[in-house]
Amino acid sequence: MYFVKVYVTYKDSVLDPQGEAVKNAVHRLGYDAIEEIRIGKYFEIQVSASEEEVEATIEAICDRLLANVNMETYRYEISKMEEV
Amino acid sequence: MYFVKVYVTYKDSVLDPQGEAVKNAVHRLGYDAIEEIRIGKYFEIQVSASEEEVEATIEAICDRLLANVNMETYRYEISKMEEV
Repeated sequence: MYFVKVYVTYKDSVLDPQGEAVKNAVHRLGYDAIEEIRIGKYFEIQVSASEEEVEATIEAICDRLLANVNMETYRYEISKMEEV
Repeated sequence: MYFVKVYVTYKDSVLDPQGEAVKNAVHRLGYDAIEEIRIGKYFEIQVSASEEEVEATIEAICDRLLANVNMETYRYEISKMEEV
């Protein structure tokens, strides 16, 4: 069993209005030290497959479902889960 | 200037219906190796403050704005940004 963390973020060239709104809210609360906020999605995924299959499966579901590859980019970290 | 990555996730005891829906969608696409998906939020934040202030500021905005501490938990990683 493998544990995969997937991070989906807007490409740098794409505006992030949600992040901009949160930054404005943070400033209204008085935290002026915050220069920039960008918001992404974070997935924790458990996969039961062989090591070779895990990477292919994760890339496939990111491309097909989790990320909009026109506007977003993704990266992932795979770790092996210890069986209890 | 510091660069902070913040991960906000539901507590383990809290159901994640959005993650469940995505898992079902992934299964319909034929990826049966996916056992579990949980979805969180991911923030990339730039802070211009001293090292001591960054941690306090991040915890304050997480508690007050970014996370619902009744249902969610958060963790963060702080790194120093190189000035160009």
